[in-house]
Formats: sequence, structure tokens, C-alpha cells
Amino acid sequence: MSEVARVGLLGRGTVGAAFASLIEERAGAVEAASGRRPEISGVLRRGEGDFEEILAGSDLIVELMGGLEPAREHVLAALRAGKPVVTANKQLIAQHGDELFDAARGNGVQVRYEAAVAGAVPVIRTVGEGLATVQLERISGIVNGTTNFILSEMAASGAPYEDVLARAQELGYAEADPTEDVGGADAAAKMAILARLGFHTPVDLADVSYEGITGISPDDIAYARELGLSLKLLGVAERHGEEISVRVFPCFLYAGHPLAPVEGPFNAVTIEGPSITEITLSGPGAGGIETASAVLADVVSILAGEAPVHTPGRRLGIARELDSSFYLHLEVADRPGVLASIAEVLGRAGISVKSVVQRGTGSDARLVMVTHRAPERDFLRALEEISALEFMRAPARAIRVVEKEFV
Amino acid sequence: MSEVARVGLLGRGTVGAAFASLIEERAGAVEAASGRRPEISGVLRRGEGDFEEILAGSDLIVELMGGLEPAREHVLAALRAGKPVVTANKQLIAQHGDELFDAARGNGVQVRYEAAVAGAVPVIRTVGEGLATVQLERISGIVNGTTNFILSEMAASGAPYEDVLARAQELGYAEADPTEDVGGADAAAKMAILARLGFHTPVDLADVSYEGITGISPDDIAYARELGLSLKLLGVAERHGEEISVRVFPCFLYAGHPLAPVEGPFNAVTIEGPSITEITLSGPGAGGIETASAVLADVVSILAGEAPVHTPGRRLGIARELDSSFYLHLEVADRPGVLASIAEVLGRAGISVKSVVQRGTGSDARLVMVTHRAPERDFLRALEEISALEFMRAPARAIRVVEKEFV
Repeated sequence: MSEVARVGLLGRGTVGAAFASLIEERAGAVEAASGRRPEISGVLRRGEGDFEEILAGSDLIVELMGGLEPAREHVLAALRAGKPVVTANKQLIAQHGDELFDAARGNGVQVRYEAAVAGAVPVIRTVGEGLATVQLERISGIVNGTTNFILSEMAASGAPYEDVLARAQELGYAEADPTEDVGGADAAAKMAILARLGFHTPVDLADVSYEGITGISPDDIAYARELGLSLKLLGVAERHGEEISVRVFPCFLYAGHPLAPVEGPFNAVTIEGPSITEITLSGPGAGGIETASAVLADVVSILAGEAPVHTPGRRLGIARELDSSFYLHLEVADRPGVLASIAEVLGRAGISVKSVVQRGTGSDARLVMVTHRAPERDFLRALEEISALEFMRAPARAIRVVEKEFV
Repeated sequence: MSEVARVGLLGRGTVGAAFASLIEERAGAVEAASGRRPEISGVLRRGEGDFEEILAGSDLIVELMGGLEPAREHVLAALRAGKPVVTANKQLIAQHGDELFDAARGNGVQVRYEAAVAGAVPVIRTVGEGLATVQLERISGIVNGTTNFILSEMAASGAPYEDVLARAQELGYAEADPTEDVGGADAAAKMAILARLGFHTPVDLADVSYEGITGISPDDIAYARELGLSLKLLGVAERHGEEISVRVFPCFLYAGHPLAPVEGPFNAVTIEGPSITEITLSGPGAGGIETASAVLADVVSILAGEAPVHTPGRRLGIARELDSSFYLHLEVADRPGVLASIAEVLGRAGISVKSVVQRGTGSDARLVMVTHRAPERDFLRALEEISALEFMRAPARAIRVVEKEFV
């Protein structure tokens, strides 16, 4: 005879409702996998239900309210009461993860958060368990479905950013206020979570640099395609010896990159390390049912038996001097000596050019080039110098390029 | 202070040697993740070492000998002695999995086998744990790196099968006797393992139908490319109500299929179900270090705490009447009425045609068509009838086509 597992549910929005029906529908499967039959024992929703009462009547807590408070307070209270927690709350984990993990460790219970990154794609489980002992070098991810949808649509239709954003909002792929997605902050929180897990170090969200996609023009996408490149908003967490870097930026990927074929509102993460070469996981981003499915998987893992709570490693420093390749888009006067002047500035900065496409546009010309890897600082200094040249007809545009460095 | 975990290693070929150095190199990380420091306590190699002695001196057994016997006997003995086992042996799991899982269950220990399918790509963990309670509908996989390398090279170079196989053998991507890989038996064993895990049912290897790639011509690949298709050796395990089908066959994938971009000696698996849409995992196939890495992950999971052993579900039947789309390559006499005759045969069988390319080749013509989905039995009957038509200049060639059915 099976024991009942009483699940206290905090929040009943889209994901909460999807989770409540999924856990009922799959109760038999949960029981077969874990030996315990789950049952929703209480639901806290806006202005309804009493948290203390729900906590007292539950064996584990599922937090799907979102936002920092009172989610943080409730999760901490549950952990301190010795009750494991499953949450889908990426900002909570990114900003208060260390505090929550400490509380979990101190009380010998788990806090699980698969749904906080990439919906049903089991990237947290893979990085945290399957690859727990692998020396990881880099985690690269398309972890925001809204921006990937927008960039895919811009590439397919040639339409400008604003039009495609409006379409994404109609289709429900972008929120009414899309700032957190299109500005890169959402992806930054997810990359902070992955970096902490993959490199066993605390990561402050303030140390994650991010840029969004609001400045991208369809021109850039079209030109880059001629060079075999596709545009993505990429999160990259890298280890550089005893330092790490965690960044989010729009960039061009070469066709052979495992993330280059990821289109539409999909998420994908590539994990690299010497003993695994590279592993890529991909699937739909955070839809209600997919997120609920990830939450349920965490519930099952908890019911199936408590895994030990990992002790954190020491804090790694933040690397600030990084190398990159760049795509460079310049609108210049069409006259002799222009290319030579630009090449001279780049050469002096130690930046070598990998490819150039030049097009006449009447009395002006357009130069699109891709550089080899060089220190970003040197490139940005050269870019400033180029922007000040008198023959420039528009501000220079630069976008990072990520090469397939593996295999 | 940490407890030592004594690991008994059976087999010390390529993977065994890679595992022995990896576990030494990552011992600190294993200890951080599991609380126990691993130590190789004994190694059984051909003609060296005593199994009983190694078993007695070990807390867990890692089986990397390959082959069915004595691997099966040793694994059973370990499980019966209450010692968990990690194995990379796909034939052992595919052919004797039920017996081993019974023994594990009976003795309250785990047998883990991540490395048996897709090297370091955590597909067993994902299907068996992360998606344990998801109602899966289909698992599709490129699970043999040798054949994917050969097909990628044939597509890239236009060279015939025999030449590319020889190159693969030189590069170490194919064995001296490649029969098990190129004939599809290796992929069949892996798909049987995935089907059992994903559908919670015993699967007999004899119920897995398979075809290999030895009959593929560069022509077919070139023609199909015009239709936007790429050729893969695909394993497909599907649920049809209370029945399942498990098959391996060469087939053409449309460009939007998540497995279409998988090139070279890579493996990838796409898992579909209503609550996850589709999740794809990809990475290098079974190299020594990647396989060792997967074995180490299993060791860590065992050391970190015993998960309960899942009880198997009831046995599902095998579906034998399946629908497919087909690519059809016909060399015919170039004269009026030929296309009409072929279309008539197809129409009578209820097969409708999606696209046709016709090319003159002197006095003959080549017809390449893709059909819509229809019962395979009907198609094969029509194919037989077409092959007997007097204007046919060479045996008809038919290859399945898999459409992107999801999203």
C-alpha cells in the first residue's frame, strides 16, 4: 500500500493550473516511479489560503507564485520546517539561491528548480547531476524563447524588430511589457543559475553582463547570412582558469555551431568539457504545460528519495578581459582610401580581418566584415576610432561572432 | 571525514582504461558530489584477476568487458551479493535487461547503464528519471555514430558507400568488421533499451525490426537533397495505444526535423510527449572518454544515494501495421504513359504522391517521388506491382521519409 505525498501548491496562475491538472492526471505514474501517490493538499492563491496552514499540512511545497517576495519568505520557511521545495522561479534562484541552498543544506532537504531554466528541457538535472563531476569549460545557451522567436522571424521575413515584436505579442510569445526578455535580463538570470551549478561557485547576478536585441536591424541579419552566420541571443558562461565570465549578448553563429539550427520559441543549451566534448539539449521554452512537466519531474525526484545536498565550492573570480570575434557593419563614403584607413586602424589595434563584403549604395558604400578573435577591449577602442573617421555615414555597428570551437 | 567507495572494475580495454584514469582524476569532484571518495579496488582483465575476490573487496561493480558472457554472470552475481552495478554493455541490457532488473529489484540495489546508449549524452537519465512520469509517444534517435558519419560523408562528397566505409575505418569511426553498425543491429539494441525505459514495458530484441545502410546509393542522397531531405539511419520507438513499435531504418528527414542537422559521428535522441512537446539531446557518440564520463556519472549517482528501483509496467503488444511516407526512385523507359501507369498503381493502392522530380537520362528517365503517409503494407504491395512493369529499367528503390510531425 502506498503512502500519500501531500503537495502544498503556492500560486495558481498558468503554470500552477497546468501543474495541478498534470499531477492529478499522472498520479499513477508518479506512484509507480516513486512509491508515493501525490495529492494537492492545499493551494495558496492571491488573497486565498493561509500559508502556515498549507505548510503544516504538506510534505513538500511547490512554489509557482513568481516574484521575489513573498516567494522567498515562504520557500525559506518551508525549508526551515524540513520540507523540500520545488520552484520554477528563476529570479528567486538567481538572486537568492545561495541563501536557499544554505537553508536546504542546514535542514537536510532539497530545493529543486528544473523549470527555472529552459522549461521541460532537463538542463538543470543534466548539469547538476549527470555532469556533476565533469570539469566544465563552457555553457552556451539560447535560454529565452521570446527573443529567439523574434530573431528567427526577423531572419525569415526581413521585417524590422518592432513589427516582429508586435507579432510575437499577438501570438503570446512576448509579454505586453517585453523588457525583461528583449533586454536580456531574463537570459542573464538563467545563465547565472547555470554558471553557479556548472562551475560550483556562487554567482552574483550583478556580475552577469547582458545586452538585448532591441538594436538589431534586419540588414545585419541579411548581410550575415551571406557570410553563413545566423543571429541568436546567446548566454555564455565560461571558465578561464580560476575565473569565470557570464554574459548574454546578441551574436552570430557559424552554421556548424550546435545552437545555429535552433529556431522559433525554442531553448537549447550546449555544455562543453574535455571528457564530454559537447552535449546539446533542446526543446520548447517555457510553455505552461512544459514548465508544469519539469516541476512534476522534480516532485518525483524528491519523492523517490532525497539525494544529498551538494556543498558549494569556493567562489571563483570574474574574468573581465575577454577575446571575441566581431561582425562589423560600416556605412562609409564610396571613395578611394576608405578601406585602407579602416584596415589601418584595425591593424594597429592588432585586429585581423577574416572576411569582407563591400557593396556600393550610390555615392556611399557598405562594408561588412568579420574579424578574428582578439581582446574585446582592443576591438572596442578601434571601433571608437573608426566611428570618428570623417567618411563614416552612420554609427558603426558591431555584433559578436561565436565560432564553433569544438570538434 | 569521507568514506571510501571501493570500485571493482571488470574489463580494461579502451573504455576501462579511460574510466580508470578519469575516476582517479575526478576523485575530488566525486567526493564533493557524493560524499564518498572512489578508489579502484580491483581490476578483472583477460586472464588476470579473480572475480570472486574483486567482488568481495568492492562496494560497487563497473562492468566494461562487453559481450554477453561472462559479463551477464558477473553482473548477476554482483547484484545478488547486494552490490550495485554500472555497465556500458548495450547488448547485455538489451538482451538480458529484464533478468538483471529483476535481480537488482530483488536485492534492493541499482543497475545503471547510461553509457550503453549515446555515450556521454544523458539520454537514459533523461528518459528514466527526468521524464519518468511523462506519457511518451515517440523516441527517435540517431544512435549509431558510425552510420551517421558514413551517411554525412556520402552526402558531402558524393562518394559511394564502399569508399566512405573504408575512410571511416581508417579514421577509427568504423570497426574492421562493421556489420553490427552498418547493418543496424547496434542501433536496434539501443532502441530496444530506450523503448523499454520510455514505455515501461519489456521489449524483446527479436521484436525490433531493423535495416542498415549498405544498400544506399549516393544518387538517392543527391536527389533527396533537391527535395530538402537528408538521409539518416533512424531508430524509432512509438506508442500506438496499447501497442508499441520499435524499428531502425534508413530514412529521409525534412529540414525542420530536430535530428536533420545532426552530422558526423554524433548521436542524438528526440523524445516526444504531450506534456513536453519534444526534447532533443545530442552529442558525440561513444568515444572512450565520453563513455567513461557516462559511467562515472552513474557511479556518482549510486554513491550519492540509492534511488528506488522502478517496478516494470505490463507488457505492451507489438504494432505491425504502420503508416509511412516513402521516397521512391524509379529508372524507367522514357516514353509516354509511363508516369500514368505508375500513378495508376499508386492510386489504386491508396497512395497519394506529394512531389515528383523527373529527369531524362538518354532513352531512359528517372522518376523520384515522395508519397504521403499510407499503410506500409499497401505501399509495399504497390511497389511490387510497379517493379514488375515492363518499362522498369532497374529495381525500384524505396526509402522511408519522416516528417516533422511536432510543433
